[in-house]
Amino acid sequence: MTDCLDDVLAHIDADLDKSIERLFRLVEIESISTDPDYAGACLQAAEWLADALDAIGFEAGVRRTPGHPMVVGRAPGGAGPHVLFYGHYDVQPVDPVDLWSSPPFQPKLVTAADGSKQIVGRGTADDKGQLMTFIEACRAWKAVTGSLPIPVTVLLEGEEESGGHNLAPFMEANKQELAADFAFICDTGMWDAKTPAVTTMLRGMVGEEITITAASRDLHSGMYGGAARNPIHVLVNVLDGLRDETGRVTLPGFYDGVGELPEAIKAQWESLGFDEAAFLGEVGLSIPAGEAGRSVIEKIWARPTCEVNGIWGGYSGKGFKTVIPSKANAKVSFRLVDQQDPEAIRESFRAYVRAKLPADCTVEFIGHGGSPGVRLPSDSPALVKTRDALTAEWGKPCVTIGAGGSIPVAGDFKKVLGLDALMVGFGLDDDRIHSPNEKYNLSSYHGGIRSWARILAALSEGSVK
Amino acid sequence: MTDCLDDVLAHIDADLDKSIERLFRLVEIESISTDPDYAGACLQAAEWLADALDAIGFEAGVRRTPGHPMVVGRAPGGAGPHVLFYGHYDVQPVDPVDLWSSPPFQPKLVTAADGSKQIVGRGTADDKGQLMTFIEACRAWKAVTGSLPIPVTVLLEGEEESGGHNLAPFMEANKQELAADFAFICDTGMWDAKTPAVTTMLRGMVGEEITITAASRDLHSGMYGGAARNPIHVLVNVLDGLRDETGRVTLPGFYDGVGELPEAIKAQWESLGFDEAAFLGEVGLSIPAGEAGRSVIEKIWARPTCEVNGIWGGYSGKGFKTVIPSKANAKVSFRLVDQQDPEAIRESFRAYVRAKLPADCTVEFIGHGGSPGVRLPSDSPALVKTRDALTAEWGKPCVTIGAGGSIPVAGDFKKVLGLDALMVGFGLDDDRIHSPNEKYNLSSYHGGIRSWARILAALSEGSVK
Repeated sequence: MTDCLDDVLAHIDADLDKSIERLFRLVEIESISTDPDYAGACLQAAEWLADALDAIGFEAGVRRTPGHPMVVGRAPGGAGPHVLFYGHYDVQPVDPVDLWSSPPFQPKLVTAADGSKQIVGRGTADDKGQLMTFIEACRAWKAVTGSLPIPVTVLLEGEEESGGHNLAPFMEANKQELAADFAFICDTGMWDAKTPAVTTMLRGMVGEEITITAASRDLHSGMYGGAARNPIHVLVNVLDGLRDETGRVTLPGFYDGVGELPEAIKAQWESLGFDEAAFLGEVGLSIPAGEAGRSVIEKIWARPTCEVNGIWGGYSGKGFKTVIPSKANAKVSFRLVDQQDPEAIRESFRAYVRAKLPADCTVEFIGHGGSPGVRLPSDSPALVKTRDALTAEWGKPCVTIGAGGSIPVAGDFKKVLGLDALMVGFGLDDDRIHSPNEKYNLSSYHGGIRSWARILAALSEGSVK
Repeated sequence: MTDCLDDVLAHIDADLDKSIERLFRLVEIESISTDPDYAGACLQAAEWLADALDAIGFEAGVRRTPGHPMVVGRAPGGAGPHVLFYGHYDVQPVDPVDLWSSPPFQPKLVTAADGSKQIVGRGTADDKGQLMTFIEACRAWKAVTGSLPIPVTVLLEGEEESGGHNLAPFMEANKQELAADFAFICDTGMWDAKTPAVTTMLRGMVGEEITITAASRDLHSGMYGGAARNPIHVLVNVLDGLRDETGRVTLPGFYDGVGELPEAIKAQWESLGFDEAAFLGEVGLSIPAGEAGRSVIEKIWARPTCEVNGIWGGYSGKGFKTVIPSKANAKVSFRLVDQQDPEAIRESFRAYVRAKLPADCTVEFIGHGGSPGVRLPSDSPALVKTRDALTAEWGKPCVTIGAGGSIPVAGDFKKVLGLDALMVGFGLDDDRIHSPNEKYNLSSYHGGIRSWARILAALSEGSVK
């Protein structure tokens, strides 16, 4: 298969404009999974992808779930391991929409101040652009050689940004069909714009939404102020107590199962030359927050967190309203590492909130997903071949890194399907995922397609089972 | 003039249905002053009132200000003091609008579960219904006798719910025209549905809006969580620190000028038989909040407070968004008593927030009004006559009380025009002002109109200058 690789890479280069056009079509579909109003758009994105896979020789279809659908496609290939490729077609909400410099669902190719070409739009980096690198690589192999170097199953999800409750049950119900030798997950980043990376550590996550209710209705702060309980006061007391002065989370048992980083990994990470000042400075900050006495890279890759992701209550419109609201609300998430147990932490959080609550207040909880952290073995043949292929494409040694975000599917692949998952992606730290003006560098997209073409070839050369 | 009083009262009774209809017309005008989108409706309310005053013999007009307009009307009268009557035609926002059982600007007369008739709609109690009691009383005097018992100036404001920044300058610029012997403010309540009251103590208020900015854009909590400053964390720390465990406000100098309640007033208030459990229980609470060791009535009439009236930041929509927001916001108000200095407290608050702020965060403040507390002399002839008239109408001795809300105009009358202001109103504790389903009892409206008819007569009997 490697005989044809040069032709495939040349085809990718020649076809790049059309690859971009195809990505634009997918980005235009407003597949925001967390908001039920966009359920139709999620289905539309799934159908678009199934059609795209079908057109390049996959036996592909949209598969219903109790939530947004899955897309599953299978294509035969040459001798080599059978790989299961994962990506997600759903995207984050776009608010605050007025901070976008162009409409989030009208993708544009722009030239940035630093001269780089960037594809701007919601989901370009997370994760539509990423999953399309793999599909476009398959398309090129199919166009040049008529088939894929190795057999491939593609699994595309529509609920990664909204808890992903239906993924594990879907895997469970379709174990046979999803059987493979190992998995690729394409939802992570490169070390920098020139250095490819495979991610082998991921943080897990527990999300909780809380609503504290005091009075049975909104009250006038003149008539009741000083005597009636203000649920915002209760809420800020609860939230402020979650971390101590050293930045450690105070929940009982929170650090159970959190180990210190092995010296070897610590040394490798230190050698990366991570620039803390630049990392924070790029977003206008200068003082690392969080746990005292730990490096920024350790904080974001290997330490658990507690973040308030949203808070609301009372009057937030123009002007002033002298109200003591009935309710106050927050969304809180915990990033997890190592052996931390998501459900134990959820319960510890709920017990903590209940214990802080005045007797005439009530609290309601809504759970938003829960997944443990993931650590992968770093010496498997598949990983070695993948790293070599990435090194060949980018001309710099591929590094092994961690990622602070949560990709619950990595844990599910292991737990449900027994598969190790290699996390290979081409995102960059400044892609503004989940934020206004999300972008994906053209170099990520183009190099990503070429990278997958090489990885498929590399795996076909011998058994890596 | 008292000769005609019975005829005037009979006329009021016979004309009640039309009085209600006129109030409905005024309530239908959506004069929300705090939201600039409703500026046109505020002007419309002012014009409606000027027309109403004009129709009953006032020389009345709409007077422009840099904000919403004033309405000023003057009518001659018989021998007696010249009184300046104050009310406000603007209303609070109506959110959360889905908690209203009928549209807020479509007033309805309903019979409540307890058999009382209630006028439901935004502004019925605060303050359109109240100011209309006075206008309808004047209308009855005019209809029956052709003139008023005493000379009256009416001043109606449109910014009471939004800081009232233009009132004092307007008074200053129109001192001559607004000259009177004393003022009536109709924006307070009765002691209960059967016991009339004159309010002689009011709390002042300082409002502050704060925006804390950390990163220059919203961040992904996976990529940055644990290392990047979360402005919601800063905000909850700032807000939680405003009160200590005994409920006292922690700002330096906050209690400067706050005296203990005189024993005589304390005794009078204790004799009122205020039912703390019922007061809190009516809104679903059972444990008094605020300063330890003080009665509820003391807390709401004679003690200063700090309340968070609104808080927002990050994602508050459906589902979950793993964001570390760039900004977090809150609206905070302080109720003031005695000699507390609003501007000193504003500065103390701002200094406190700045001192709590990490060096790479910034804060912006927006001031929303500031007025000191008010205490009136309790033995003036005008007050005695007013109390007697109220006692005659309601058949129960009129009591002298405090009010927890802020009516900045009371301080302005004293400061700018040198006038003492008697606060007479007919609202009830359960009127749900500032809340969904605001109402004004028909007994308040009808009895209020009759009360003013009696007060005008009582004042005409002799000089109370």
